[in-house]
Amino acid sequence: MEDNADKTSEARNADAQPVSDDDVYTEDGDLRSDFVERVTTALEQGDRDSLTDEVGELHESELGDLLESLDSDERGQLVTMLGSDFDFSALTEVDEAVRLEIIDAMPNERIAEGLADLDSDDAVYILEDLDQEDQDDILAKLPFTERIRLRRALDYPEDTAGRRMQTEFVAVPPFWTVGQTIDYMREDEDLPESFSQIFVVDPTFKLMGVIDLDRILRTKRKVKIEDIMRDTNYPIAAEMDQEEAAQLFEQYDLLSAAVVDKNGRLVGVLTIDDVVDVIQEEAEEDLMRMGGVGDEELSDSVRATSRSRVPWLLANLFTAFMAASVISLFEATIQEIVALAVLMPIVAGMGGNAGSQTMTVTVRALATRNLSFRNAPRIIRRECLVGLINGLIFGLLIATVAGFWFQSAEIAGIIAAAMLINMFVAALAGIVVPLILDRFGADPAVGSAVFVTTTTDIIGFFAFLGIATWWFGVS
Amino acid sequence: MEDNADKTSEARNADAQPVSDDDVYTEDGDLRSDFVERVTTALEQGDRDSLTDEVGELHESELGDLLESLDSDERGQLVTMLGSDFDFSALTEVDEAVRLEIIDAMPNERIAEGLADLDSDDAVYILEDLDQEDQDDILAKLPFTERIRLRRALDYPEDTAGRRMQTEFVAVPPFWTVGQTIDYMREDEDLPESFSQIFVVDPTFKLMGVIDLDRILRTKRKVKIEDIMRDTNYPIAAEMDQEEAAQLFEQYDLLSAAVVDKNGRLVGVLTIDDVVDVIQEEAEEDLMRMGGVGDEELSDSVRATSRSRVPWLLANLFTAFMAASVISLFEATIQEIVALAVLMPIVAGMGGNAGSQTMTVTVRALATRNLSFRNAPRIIRRECLVGLINGLIFGLLIATVAGFWFQSAEIAGIIAAAMLINMFVAALAGIVVPLILDRFGADPAVGSAVFVTTTTDIIGFFAFLGIATWWFGVS
Repeated sequence: MEDNADKTSEARNADAQPVSDDDVYTEDGDLRSDFVERVTTALEQGDRDSLTDEVGELHESELGDLLESLDSDERGQLVTMLGSDFDFSALTEVDEAVRLEIIDAMPNERIAEGLADLDSDDAVYILEDLDQEDQDDILAKLPFTERIRLRRALDYPEDTAGRRMQTEFVAVPPFWTVGQTIDYMREDEDLPESFSQIFVVDPTFKLMGVIDLDRILRTKRKVKIEDIMRDTNYPIAAEMDQEEAAQLFEQYDLLSAAVVDKNGRLVGVLTIDDVVDVIQEEAEEDLMRMGGVGDEELSDSVRATSRSRVPWLLANLFTAFMAASVISLFEATIQEIVALAVLMPIVAGMGGNAGSQTMTVTVRALATRNLSFRNAPRIIRRECLVGLINGLIFGLLIATVAGFWFQSAEIAGIIAAAMLINMFVAALAGIVVPLILDRFGADPAVGSAVFVTTTTDIIGFFAFLGIATWWFGVS
Repeated sequence: MEDNADKTSEARNADAQPVSDDDVYTEDGDLRSDFVERVTTALEQGDRDSLTDEVGELHESELGDLLESLDSDERGQLVTMLGSDFDFSALTEVDEAVRLEIIDAMPNERIAEGLADLDSDDAVYILEDLDQEDQDDILAKLPFTERIRLRRALDYPEDTAGRRMQTEFVAVPPFWTVGQTIDYMREDEDLPESFSQIFVVDPTFKLMGVIDLDRILRTKRKVKIEDIMRDTNYPIAAEMDQEEAAQLFEQYDLLSAAVVDKNGRLVGVLTIDDVVDVIQEEAEEDLMRMGGVGDEELSDSVRATSRSRVPWLLANLFTAFMAASVISLFEATIQEIVALAVLMPIVAGMGGNAGSQTMTVTVRALATRNLSFRNAPRIIRRECLVGLINGLIFGLLIATVAGFWFQSAEIAGIIAAAMLINMFVAALAGIVVPLILDRFGADPAVGSAVFVTTTTDIIGFFAFLGIATWWFGVS
């Protein structure tokens, strides 16, 4: 097992030695402007010493924040001036656009040097966005063991556990004693800074069990490893989707988990800190998708941003014309009673708002797996009831205001009925649309909003103008 | 330090011994219906043995999922039938409404018994939702040390690090050797199942440093604790807001952190698994607030749901009437050219969609602290440009369709101009509104949607109908 000594997993508590939080951030969590100014001044004056003073001791995430708040030119200057003092792990803390900009400006030799210092998961995170040619070239410049290790992770598809795992870990044979294991850890100079579990493997590297460090500490020296190891309850398949892996971490409050290949051989370890990022990205994705912005980032260019937003606007435009054509069915009625044109956006809009309330709850419940086909009927019933009740409340409210405004009990009655209908339909659409999308394997966060507001617009206009046309007998 | 031996922190790797995942969940992550049926059958028949067979070995989160998917009656039966075998930690895994329903049905003696087995953070999580009287009564029924420990956490305000921390931890004096520390851990029978750090404190319990377990393992027995302890870079004040603490964990990839009181005395430890929940709640909150649903849960009653949604609908109603009154300014024009009534929702709606795209990006960037006053001007410029470009694209597109539809180059020109104006305003409002709300300490996720859509509705109607009125010269 000797050759694994220098590849043990590295947890993050030990290497966190940043400048105190107060030094670079304001109370609101923004970077302090005087700090950023000192950095830009040093950059302008080409003053490498004061630059190193300012940023040399920064934590990777602080350096990442700094990079993001600098202009494009300044970023390049900073990386160049720092030279080999530049901490590549900061690149895992910035937006993809910023990362690619910095990486693209560097020769591959320099990238290979920088990556060699990183944990394998961080190196893979940076490498995976590059094109195949650059990837191969950079890998070829790395030492053999590094190359093999990164290649192993990169061979797994994007967004799998295999891509996110660390390929460094500590593994010992089952027949060692606790004493042997402790001595091995005491004497081996190449051990990494920090790790929280030791894996037990057979000679073919098949995973046999796992031991938490505290268990080792609490056990007498002569006890055998195989007698205190426990089952790994959740060995994660390397091909597993990272979201699925994150859900296992969440559900069972795991701190780390072994990653195994198809033959049950240990290939890496997935740790909670990588998973936290996945969990956050997940929740963010839902928010962004529901708002009609894909995986846009703040540092994207005008052109990229504009283009990425067009599809959603196009989809909405299509449905807007559908709603407009519903209105055009009733042109004669509107010409006779213009009040209808004034009030119709209220009916459609309130339906849209009510629908998106229900839809938000539904999308989130689907994402967190709180909503399933077993409890769906109960929740649909509840939403429909809520829709009816709020339809009644707002129907009456709007009827009162509209009745006084246009001095017409008829209009009041018509808008009340239309509101009741549309709020009920909104509730039904708000829950049924995401459920159906989910059932057919589509992402409910992406498509729901368009379908739901289309429904509420069309039903809103149709109910309001239709009832009015019927009541007033306009042909 | 003897009296701390049984209060050491408990990480979660070791106690996770649930039924294999495949047994209770389908591939989609829902509970298997045949499993739920076996449970409900056992409940109906009052068959305690088969009930225990089915649920006795479940992980707390699996039992929680089961509770949520049962009917209200069945939940009560299950808890009653399991009796003292019911694992109270499952209550930390269910919605608040379900938790309160189960707890309210229990006598306080029974609750006190159940809580005594839990970690302090889980016990506090359950206790904090109860009213003061019940809390006091249950605390009074607990053993002295338990009571003191829970009281200490409950004394900190809601949503602070002090509320979320575990008050169990391992602490040793700095003058001990590594050997003494290991022997202490080997011999003390009362040590908890798992922990990953040891804290170093002075006789007044003032925090002096921290040692990760792997460091202990790699150090020779005769070395003194004070020589290998490291600074706790991020001791978290017990009064710190839990979100702020979660941000520290995220930013610095922490796995656990000491929680200290105002005098720097160690009072507990905050672990990543508690923080993961906070991070997820955070991201969810933004999503829910932007969708106009507060901290609603799937298990809330019809009445609670209906009531919680009224305020947002009311705010939207108010703004809908404002938009309607803009339309009513142009009644004469609409009566003359009904096509305007057909097309005006398109102008307003597309503006609303574009605005909410920008707003979504802005709200998320503010929440993740990627947007600050330093880079705001750059982002505002970008958004305005994107708004102009997409305004041009969609203005031309809509003009073409509308022009052919109504056979009028005039209407085409008017709608193109109105679209350009409204998409620009939408972009500006989408970024400036959340920024201003954030600046004044309001939550941008709550208010932005209402303000942004009001702006795009009003400007959309005003620009389209106003230009038309001016062009066609209707008085």
